[in-house]
Amino acid sequence: MYILVTNDDGIDSPGISALVAAMRPLGDVVVVAPDRQQSAVGHALTVSSPLRATPFHRDGVPFGYAINGTPADCVKLAVSTLLPRRPDVVVSGINHGSNTSVNALYSGTVSAATEGTLMGIPSIAFSLSSFDVSSDMSLAADVAHDIVSRLHSLAIPAGTLLNVNIPDVDRSLYKGLRITRQGRSAWRDHYERRNDPHGREYFWLHGEFVTLEVLDDADDLAVAQGYTAITPLHYELTNVDMLTPLREAIAGS
Amino acid sequence: MYILVTNDDGIDSPGISALVAAMRPLGDVVVVAPDRQQSAVGHALTVSSPLRATPFHRDGVPFGYAINGTPADCVKLAVSTLLPRRPDVVVSGINHGSNTSVNALYSGTVSAATEGTLMGIPSIAFSLSSFDVSSDMSLAADVAHDIVSRLHSLAIPAGTLLNVNIPDVDRSLYKGLRITRQGRSAWRDHYERRNDPHGREYFWLHGEFVTLEVLDDADDLAVAQGYTAITPLHYELTNVDMLTPLREAIAGS
Repeated sequence: MYILVTNDDGIDSPGISALVAAMRPLGDVVVVAPDRQQSAVGHALTVSSPLRATPFHRDGVPFGYAINGTPADCVKLAVSTLLPRRPDVVVSGINHGSNTSVNALYSGTVSAATEGTLMGIPSIAFSLSSFDVSSDMSLAADVAHDIVSRLHSLAIPAGTLLNVNIPDVDRSLYKGLRITRQGRSAWRDHYERRNDPHGREYFWLHGEFVTLEVLDDADDLAVAQGYTAITPLHYELTNVDMLTPLREAIAGS
Repeated sequence: MYILVTNDDGIDSPGISALVAAMRPLGDVVVVAPDRQQSAVGHALTVSSPLRATPFHRDGVPFGYAINGTPADCVKLAVSTLLPRRPDVVVSGINHGSNTSVNALYSGTVSAATEGTLMGIPSIAFSLSSFDVSSDMSLAADVAHDIVSRLHSLAIPAGTLLNVNIPDVDRSLYKGLRITRQGRSAWRDHYERRNDPHGREYFWLHGEFVTLEVLDDADDLAVAQGYTAITPLHYELTNVDMLTPLREAIAGS
């Protein structure tokens, strides 16, 4: 397998290092990742400035290319231009922090997998449910290895990606894999108003995560229970149920 | 109606000016928009730096607040913090360039409407199918006025936004409103390799838009035929059809 690894925490993060180590036994690994933290970038692309690809070393050994762009940029540039051949799979992560529920919409980790999917390549996003950069990645790395090694049997259809969220639990409490759906949750946001030393006002984002509807098979619930949540996501955004009512409303008014 | 107007081309763009003028007869209008061009930002949020809201004037008259952030930031900050009351509708645009098909995923214009929808407010994105900043916005403005004036009768359900794309045609060729679905298209990307004056390589994104599947009711087709395409989008990303096959694959392997 030819495996493209990327992330949104930056090419120097512990999470991508753990993911690369987990992928190496499965095939040829190439790393093309952002040169810095790109969290909450959504599915952003760099269109009005040039991209650069800089060889990046870890511990004196060539590790991959650092890109001055977003996770989606990395996948587009790698697949279309940098790589000598098309990857068999795009893996993104391991993200520090879970990307369940509504977070999938904001996540750079998921957006890298989205871009791979849009380019027709099976793609998987991996996130660990801990924001602590020193958290133990070994369980998450084993899960990533397990899932990618089953890639063929999972038969992911074109246009669908797997969003994988791994609990931050001790192995003795870990319960295994579960296929889930995206939870129905939201952020209730506040911005804290502050003043800078010059007396000018500025705002810092704060949020509170609220569950809107309890689903038995929601990704966030599974992770809270100690399971790895595997959610198949696709980008068929049309609300098909609304087509007829809207046609009637437009015609009738 | 209390109407929040935003965009992704920046608060000084002609498109937002046209949209504000179209909304004024319908209610109280407040503008909170990015202080600069934010195209292709996807659903990005600013989480690691502070936001500022600067009063912005056009022709010497107060026009709204300019935010040093993305379209999603503008909606979140406005609704949660800046505005004295909750808006009845969020409108975004008028974008210079269409946001049909796969472009909805990259679009800052659509992401502003997505954020409004996530906050539980009916939200509509408006885009004109021309990248020419000097294009005539008057038809698009009339369409925006017409659609927002019908907001009540359209009965947009919670969690769904309207992605409206208006053709750049003479009124004599304009065919009216059509309810559509998101087209199945993709970008085939190339990056042009260049060298800077210091001999270092860099890459510029180029893309070619290709139709993957012809759908009779696709948004991009409707716009090409001279219709305004109104596509109801929602963010139920789970590929529900894959839940059972994935459960069987996981259990069986």
